[in-house]
Amino acid sequence: MEIKRPLLLISNDDGYQAKGIRDLIKMISDLGDIMVCAPEDARSGYSCAFSATTPLQLKLREKRQGVEIWSCNGTPVDCVKMALAELVPRKPDMVIGGINHGDNASVNTHYSGTMGVTLEGCMKYIPSVAFSLCDYRQDADFEPMRPLIRQITERVLCEGLPLGVCLNVNFPLGDSRNSGESYKGVKVCRMAHGTWGSEVTKCHHPRGYDYWWMVGRYQNDEPEAEDTDNWALNHGYVAITPTQIDVTAYQAIDKIKSWGL
Amino acid sequence: MEIKRPLLLISNDDGYQAKGIRDLIKMISDLGDIMVCAPEDARSGYSCAFSATTPLQLKLREKRQGVEIWSCNGTPVDCVKMALAELVPRKPDMVIGGINHGDNASVNTHYSGTMGVTLEGCMKYIPSVAFSLCDYRQDADFEPMRPLIRQITERVLCEGLPLGVCLNVNFPLGDSRNSGESYKGVKVCRMAHGTWGSEVTKCHHPRGYDYWWMVGRYQNDEPEAEDTDNWALNHGYVAITPTQIDVTAYQAIDKIKSWGL
Repeated sequence: MEIKRPLLLISNDDGYQAKGIRDLIKMISDLGDIMVCAPEDARSGYSCAFSATTPLQLKLREKRQGVEIWSCNGTPVDCVKMALAELVPRKPDMVIGGINHGDNASVNTHYSGTMGVTLEGCMKYIPSVAFSLCDYRQDADFEPMRPLIRQITERVLCEGLPLGVCLNVNFPLGDSRNSGESYKGVKVCRMAHGTWGSEVTKCHHPRGYDYWWMVGRYQNDEPEAEDTDNWALNHGYVAITPTQIDVTAYQAIDKIKSWGL
Repeated sequence: MEIKRPLLLISNDDGYQAKGIRDLIKMISDLGDIMVCAPEDARSGYSCAFSATTPLQLKLREKRQGVEIWSCNGTPVDCVKMALAELVPRKPDMVIGGINHGDNASVNTHYSGTMGVTLEGCMKYIPSVAFSLCDYRQDADFEPMRPLIRQITERVLCEGLPLGVCLNVNFPLGDSRNSGESYKGVKVCRMAHGTWGSEVTKCHHPRGYDYWWMVGRYQNDEPEAEDTDNWALNHGYVAITPTQIDVTAYQAIDKIKSWGL
């Protein structure tokens, strides 16, 4: 019997050419066969969106021993769906989103295309993990993340994850020039409660009409809570937030039942 | 002191001209002032996506006593963010998504733009509710939903909802020709576990290349579970699923901690 290498399906929301996904491939390509299907260009803030009305296309960008890289003109979730339906030679052993340029902690989980990739893998009952770094720069240094990314990937390949649960892993800015550890440690966290404010900036077009850019400032609404992802990141720890597909608010069921509708 | 009427912010993912949102406005416009900001056209499957790179514009489509209708060229979530930042005269007392043409039960919660609207309101700590009907037709008959939509809206305006919890309300196909009740009753539910399969259909363009349409078939993975939204809808009940922003998988924290990373 031929023993298959694990198959890792990778996508992101920064596009197939982003440094984050390229560095990720290099970090883990010895751990299994790599299939990449990622957006043609940046699709930040695409959440779990899929293309209900746009025809999708695939382009093979690179193929070498053990690594295939495809781009798709759709959303991050489209990339996963297309890869699963059309590209993978067998069911992947793991879906990985990232490495994202920028953090996906707290409510960013809901907006993130990287988490869209990861939730999509999880909804297909495949162990899935998102990796993100608190650094939006195109040339961000992902190298300090390498040991932990490899450790988590190996662990998940070996043990799997509970059904319906994926991991949202966020890294604070590390310092690869340090001879010592890049991070203070790892915290397994809950999602912090936070809010985005000042979200739009109004501008005036030379032709005389108004338009708006979506920007915004994030506020951690519970900065003292040491069990949250925001706290961990703000204090130099890597934040691992186990994240689930089931969004039922079980604790509210009795209250709504008491309305007697 | 002047007593203000409640302010209801309404959006959807079918676009400001859809019958569902038009009928909703008529059903509840006596319960408060209505501010509508909805996509210019259909934005199904947009989830919590927002426009990180597209300039947004607003157009006033209709204004009469107590009702303003705006369209926005962005996503459903953009519509809520824009309305909150630029359109509302005061903080809304409630955000309502819908009425959606098509159900948003089970994992559709994650893909739905209508739920995007509702989660966005909830993330801004505003009591928020999504209404959806299991009927995709443009001329769907929403009338049987009227009594319960009014009852839920009045109840939420009066009592609010727990912080971080919104309601995902899905209606089965009713029958307004019935002299009796349109629905068997109301079930307060959890989200069913289900999966989408056969999600892409490959086509061949006359110019010689392949392209794909995203379609898919939903499968309820626990059809016998009577406490789920899918079960309720399949058996003629209205399904109310309390839905939360916090997606932390608390039950998995100890397991991941035991990895000793």
